[in-house]
Amino acid sequence: MVSKTQIVALFLCFLTSTSSVTYGQKRRPRRPCNHLVFYFHDILFKGDNYNNATAAIVGSPAWGNKTAMAQPYNFGDLVVFDDPITLDNNLHSPPVGRAQGTYLYDQRIIYGAWLGFSFLFNSTKHVGSLNFAGADPLMNKTREISVIGGTGDFFMARGIATLMTDAFEGDVYFRLRVDISLYECW
Amino acid sequence: MVSKTQIVALFLCFLTSTSSVTYGQKRRPRRPCNHLVFYFHDILFKGDNYNNATAAIVGSPAWGNKTAMAQPYNFGDLVVFDDPITLDNNLHSPPVGRAQGTYLYDQRIIYGAWLGFSFLFNSTKHVGSLNFAGADPLMNKTREISVIGGTGDFFMARGIATLMTDAFEGDVYFRLRVDISLYECW
Amino acid sequence: MVSKTQIVALFLCFLTSTSSVTYGQKRRPRRPCNHLVFYFHDILFKGDNYNNATAAIVGSPAWGNKTAMAQPYNFGDLVVFDDPITLDNNLHSPPVGRAQGTYLYDQRIIYGAWLGFSFLFNSTKHVGSLNFAGADPLMNKTREISVIGGTGDFFMARGIATLMTDAFEGDVYFRLRVDISLYECW
Repeated sequence: MVSKTQIVALFLCFLTSTSSVTYGQKRRPRRPCNHLVFYFHDILFKGDNYNNATAAIVGSPAWGNKTAMAQPYNFGDLVVFDDPITLDNNLHSPPVGRAQGTYLYDQRIIYGAWLGFSFLFNSTKHVGSLNFAGADPLMNKTREISVIGGTGDFFMARGIATLMTDAFEGDVYFRLRVDISLYECW
Repeated sequence: MVSKTQIVALFLCFLTSTSSVTYGQKRRPRRPCNHLVFYFHDILFKGDNYNNATAAIVGSPAWGNKTAMAQPYNFGDLVVFDDPITLDNNLHSPPVGRAQGTYLYDQRIIYGAWLGFSFLFNSTKHVGSLNFAGADPLMNKTREISVIGGTGDFFMARGIATLMTDAFEGDVYFRLRVDISLYECW
Repeated sequence: MVSKTQIVALFLCFLTSTSSVTYGQKRRPRRPCNHLVFYFHDILFKGDNYNNATAAIVGSPAWGNKTAMAQPYNFGDLVVFDDPITLDNNLHSPPVGRAQGTYLYDQRIIYGAWLGFSFLFNSTKHVGSLNFAGADPLMNKTREISVIGGTGDFFMARGIATLMTDAFEGDVYFRLRVDISLYECW
């Protein structure tokens, strides 16, 4: 036999267990449903390195040009890139995909960029894509951008990608470590 | 009279029925809440077709220009477009909206682009907008990008848009079929 | 003692209370979980105002250039900006953050743009970022774009931002009022 008290307890138990998914004022748990780490490698075209360049300036301000970064702070340079993604920090490791899209330097008094790009995977481990957008204030050790969607293995994904500059060689080469935490998985 | 066993069964039933909306490790059902098909038509400005062009190269690499695609693979060309959307594959059908935004060719050894654009609807059937972002590896028969948001009739929408090149005439005209499946509707 | 009828009523009660979070055909409540209002100020570089400009044309069509808007309707101009955000409509109020990213004029027969940008906050009140994307048909009194993600205080946020042109002085200065309603808060 079940008492009314027990039913009420059960009811409260359900309310508690479902409250984390209620929309409106309630909060959802900040526990990733997937976590991935990748590196990608960007070699900018500077006029004399066409063959191994992976990125090119395609827009620049009135005071800039397409073979050198605009001064100061690269402000106004828009770059299109097709960069290899690797599992470790070695440029020559076998790529597991490509990072493709654009970054544009959009800060006037410090280095910073806005990113709109995708990871395209086609490896034994991952098939599909992840789409990213957000601000990258480059002088911060870590920067967070949004994972705004995904396809294939990452169908409808959302999350946060934490960027770290893992290497930086003048204006020609940089390597980013991308630490991806997905909070919406389907 | 209800036994404790029955209550436990009921409890398990609830857990099952709500698990599909639990965040974290659980999966949500991949059943679209809305499905739409459109075509859009892009006529690129090539120097001598200003009057009927719907798109223009506005950024290009050092080796490119704004009246012809950069060679090879258009890499580095950034195009702004204002393309009519139709319900069928006829360029001259009455448009139900405009596809507006940018595509940028971002693959070095094959044709591919990154897309950031919106569908703006203002017809008897749809009022509002859908926003898209993602990679378009053009040589694949179908490609998937993300629906990252929407307004009006598509308030807060998220989903997947499957792109198919429905026609392609040199560098001047292409027509995309866009098959939109929304998985988040409000 | 509890009757079966009471259990069934309880069951229905649960179904009702959780239906607003069910994915698929069901609708979620359109009640914001956060609401914010900001202004941002854009001063375009026109060739002779480098020192106080906050934005620069970095891409333009074949018939345009980087120190004046392309005619007609600015179509094809792509601008990178680093604009101060203020709490009121005064350009000289202390900024609470920066609006950074790009807008590109993408309408051929009226003024309109596509926006991809972020708000970066670093004030006593807000730390973090909000990422935006969407179409801005400028001649409409209000326009809606998507909040596609956020970080820090705005972790994983989604919502709608309503834009209003609050001031417009030729091609050089404009001020936008941004009314942000978040519908997903974590």
